[in-house]
Amino acid sequence: MHFSDRLGNAIQEKNNPTVMGLDPKLDYIPQHIRDCAQKDAMNPFHAAADSIITFNCALINAVADIVPAVKPQLAYYEWFGLEGLRAFDTTCRYAKEKGLLVIADGKRNDIGSTAEAYSGAYLGETDLENGKSTVFNTDALTVNAYLGEDGIKPFLKDCDVYEKGIFILVKTSNPSSGQLQDMPLADGRKVYEAMADLVKDWGAERCGQNGYNSVGAVVGATYPVQLAEMRERMPNTWILVPGYGAQGGKAADVALAFDAKGLGALVNASRSLMCAWQKADRYAGYSEADFALAARNEAIRMRDEINEALQKR
Amino acid sequence: MHFSDRLGNAIQEKNNPTVMGLDPKLDYIPQHIRDCAQKDAMNPFHAAADSIITFNCALINAVADIVPAVKPQLAYYEWFGLEGLRAFDTTCRYAKEKGLLVIADGKRNDIGSTAEAYSGAYLGETDLENGKSTVFNTDALTVNAYLGEDGIKPFLKDCDVYEKGIFILVKTSNPSSGQLQDMPLADGRKVYEAMADLVKDWGAERCGQNGYNSVGAVVGATYPVQLAEMRERMPNTWILVPGYGAQGGKAADVALAFDAKGLGALVNASRSLMCAWQKADRYAGYSEADFALAARNEAIRMRDEINEALQKR
Repeated sequence: MHFSDRLGNAIQEKNNPTVMGLDPKLDYIPQHIRDCAQKDAMNPFHAAADSIITFNCALINAVADIVPAVKPQLAYYEWFGLEGLRAFDTTCRYAKEKGLLVIADGKRNDIGSTAEAYSGAYLGETDLENGKSTVFNTDALTVNAYLGEDGIKPFLKDCDVYEKGIFILVKTSNPSSGQLQDMPLADGRKVYEAMADLVKDWGAERCGQNGYNSVGAVVGATYPVQLAEMRERMPNTWILVPGYGAQGGKAADVALAFDAKGLGALVNASRSLMCAWQKADRYAGYSEADFALAARNEAIRMRDEINEALQKR
Repeated sequence: MHFSDRLGNAIQEKNNPTVMGLDPKLDYIPQHIRDCAQKDAMNPFHAAADSIITFNCALINAVADIVPAVKPQLAYYEWFGLEGLRAFDTTCRYAKEKGLLVIADGKRNDIGSTAEAYSGAYLGETDLENGKSTVFNTDALTVNAYLGEDGIKPFLKDCDVYEKGIFILVKTSNPSSGQLQDMPLADGRKVYEAMADLVKDWGAERCGQNGYNSVGAVVGATYPVQLAEMRERMPNTWILVPGYGAQGGKAADVALAFDAKGLGALVNASRSLMCAWQKADRYAGYSEADFALAARNEAIRMRDEINEALQKR
């Protein structure tokens, strides 16, 4: 099934337009998990990866019936080297088994021939001696399009062939995103608006049955004015919205990313779910053994808060 | 020692301002290596990684006394999954053992907190249960600065603390690089010129004794006019120049990236070295067993061609 329809169906089935970011740091993980992993492991990297796997899989179990997708952030896995990437791979496979869509957050980019390799790793296949084989088998990948169309084409091709998706950075959630992205162009647009127009073009002939296409955009919740503007400018583009929760974006802000029917956006929260158990204010009665339940309850709270904001518009 | 001085010294000792790109595809690798790896391996991914390791190490052996650095392109290793990343790690460690600088070509980018993880993986360290530890231990990383300064700061910090370097994409070598990078800004600059000005600023207080700093730029040999312009605009910035050889850049083109003393640039060649043994025109008498010798001879030819072009100016 087309990526857009798989994503749209998953959101509608669970009545939840959010994605759980899996950006593991060791200090997000309860001590009992880390202690256990250390006892069993061959070395500290192995222990870290085992801790992450145990933590991630418990979180996935806890939210699999209420959240449509997870978004592991590759940086945090690469930070633990080869063992970390083992944890990434295991996390992705486990999430898929539990029926979740997996969006690899890698912001990959390169010239055409090299982009082909990145795309093969996350969306398509690789060529081995005995034929083609899937590598990481994720459903979508975040991509940086600073290199222009020929760096994007290999991803588009794999989106078409393998029914996968990409999300291209348009207006990112970080404080200095405007330094380059908000620069005014001679034609009156800003750089991020020009990027949005490219994203719209690349998605134009890639629509699913729900009207959205396989070439999404990343627009941060921390810039609500631009978020509303981008919703209008790219009417058939899925918007992946980081910056909700820990980075400061509110439910009323992220609501601006959705169309009139309440579709077309996917809101990410990472730390607010992964670290819910550490939040003394909201989850005061929870012990570290309740980390997965805290994440589940926070996922429900987030779902309800966003759905309420959507109904209030 | 400061990254810029380590790089400058290595170039001067070997009288060679080039870097060997290690972008392995299976069909670049002689059949006898692939056959041998397949016999021994646990699965096709393992076999592919073993082939790559054997191939890369032989290439490194063949050029270690004449080339100052290697640049493994992460995409090609990720394409072979966890086993591919094992090949990346082994390649980097082997190159370091042989006294070569290692530039990881990953074009990584993200918001500040996440960029910290990428930087830790390639330039700095990671936090494990028993303290800090090096992860991939490369000397430099290519970086995409579409997210602006707060996505760059963690890399800058690690450049300072660990004496490492970064190379930020300014004007890339691919055909469509101009689609975004050449857009005219309202202030009269083009996007890549604005990026160059940021790169210059970020490097300003990070100079080595040779006058160059730890914040380099990537500018493609396929755009010689811009290359000359960028040399002038960023006088203390190392320029990493892809696009020579297989992509079409000539020695006279890449010569424009160097300062009057013949310093300040590092020219990459990947396919032209890795696949020299397949070039019937230039290496007609070579069998596939001579692949490493062909790479060495091509590396010498490239060195001499570029040095000659530098003297002719």
